[in-house]
Amino acid sequence: MLYAIVNHTLLPAEEATLRVQDLSIQRGYGVFDFFKTIQGKPVFLEDHLDRFYQSASLLQLPVSYSRQALKQLIFQLMERNQLPDSGIRITLTGGYAADGFTIATPNLIITQQPVSIDRQLQATGIHLATYPHQRQLPAAKSIDYLMAIWLQGFVQQQEAQDVLYHQDGRVTECPRSNFFIVTQDPKVVTPSHRILQGVIRKQVLQLAEEQYVVEEREVTLDDIYKAREAFVTSTTKNILPVVRFDGQVIGTGQPGQVTKDLSDRLEQLISNHIA
Amino acid sequence: MLYAIVNHTLLPAEEATLRVQDLSIQRGYGVFDFFKTIQGKPVFLEDHLDRFYQSASLLQLPVSYSRQALKQLIFQLMERNQLPDSGIRITLTGGYAADGFTIATPNLIITQQPVSIDRQLQATGIHLATYPHQRQLPAAKSIDYLMAIWLQGFVQQQEAQDVLYHQDGRVTECPRSNFFIVTQDPKVVTPSHRILQGVIRKQVLQLAEEQYVVEEREVTLDDIYKAREAFVTSTTKNILPVVRFDGQVIGTGQPGQVTKDLSDRLEQLISNHIA
Repeated sequence: MLYAIVNHTLLPAEEATLRVQDLSIQRGYGVFDFFKTIQGKPVFLEDHLDRFYQSASLLQLPVSYSRQALKQLIFQLMERNQLPDSGIRITLTGGYAADGFTIATPNLIITQQPVSIDRQLQATGIHLATYPHQRQLPAAKSIDYLMAIWLQGFVQQQEAQDVLYHQDGRVTECPRSNFFIVTQDPKVVTPSHRILQGVIRKQVLQLAEEQYVVEEREVTLDDIYKAREAFVTSTTKNILPVVRFDGQVIGTGQPGQVTKDLSDRLEQLISNHIA
Repeated sequence: MLYAIVNHTLLPAEEATLRVQDLSIQRGYGVFDFFKTIQGKPVFLEDHLDRFYQSASLLQLPVSYSRQALKQLIFQLMERNQLPDSGIRITLTGGYAADGFTIATPNLIITQQPVSIDRQLQATGIHLATYPHQRQLPAAKSIDYLMAIWLQGFVQQQEAQDVLYHQDGRVTECPRSNFFIVTQDPKVVTPSHRILQGVIRKQVLQLAEEQYVVEEREVTLDDIYKAREAFVTSTTKNILPVVRFDGQVIGTGQPGQVTKDLSDRLEQLISNHIA
């Protein structure tokens, strides 16, 4: 049986509840972050905690837990669950608002589930469908996934595995991952604005800079169709090649060499990180 | 002590909880509706139920409750709480998603609180601050109030009581109410597109058509500054005059005659409705 933490309390995950007055249930208001553990070691935990506090600040949610206190709760949960390869989610909600509208004392939830990278998709690459949308308050990892959940039917209809948001032809990100292209030059290029600053995105940019020209800039749908390779990055996916957009093949239709190179080096970096 | 309903269970409101796996907490995914009772009589209940089912359908949430079953739960709650003048909220969430992302069996929550119209604000009118924003899936009454909650500080800074959303100068609605202007002619004008179809909005349009020229059309910020009167409509406010936008006075700076006329007739209509 898995355990979870609600505020300071460790309890069976099935008993982890919030009262329905919480602003997450009433108004969809909260933030979270999500990191993985491999062989019982948290991966890029400091980056995720940095972003967690930043998201909370952007949403004006006071965090009463010091970084050290938060880590202690996380390690307490890991100790209890004994789940070596996992995803750990830290959620902070708007709290129990008496008027159903005003931010109150936030509720903290920490949950853990088994997570593993999908190696099959890494080998074949995925298809993305594009959709015009801009995430609200994009620099914060809020719980607002209204469009992402709503678009799941669309993604299936398009025989895609995920959706890539764009606005007026300028692409930003997927609901749960950052997006990169490799140009014909080749340069490694990724959108710079109105996105979530992904933890894996940051690592991939650093790796890419060692061997390629890297640009953080506006990326258009047209850029994608001219690209040699494309991929997405996220905590649960690491690097996942993208081989088709809206039914149109990109590059050779196979995962590209630069993508594979970066993917191998990212896996190595993560292995070193947890060693 | 007030009671609430979670799925089929009537229980003390303080014990009304959802497990943290619910998609409302995980992904801000759910819909709701909210109606008032006066002297123990639901006001425009059928309209609210129509919209509740429509919102659920728009968000692809299956409702396992027939209209009759839903009403029985509502009346059961009213019977228990004995709260004559109240607001009743019916919320339907995305349910307990095993993967934290896919719509599951929705959870139904029904809560009731004391509610009364603020007569002071009706007498003085309110100030609105404008802000560029478009609600996501605006035809659905989703729980997505991320921007509305986030903007509360902005509203206070602007010494306003609420925010009016616009995009590229075309106004739509306030987070929890519909918006009208009265032109110099006078015509009663309200935005037509990318808004929530308010229950009070519909009643006010019908009342207005009896005595004025009515237009549902694009309304710009410029239209507002030229307007003679302005007001908002909602279940908790009925008609509330707006006398200032972004610090600029509209009309005389006092609640206008057409607004007062419509407000009086709306109150009469509601009195008749519950009689």
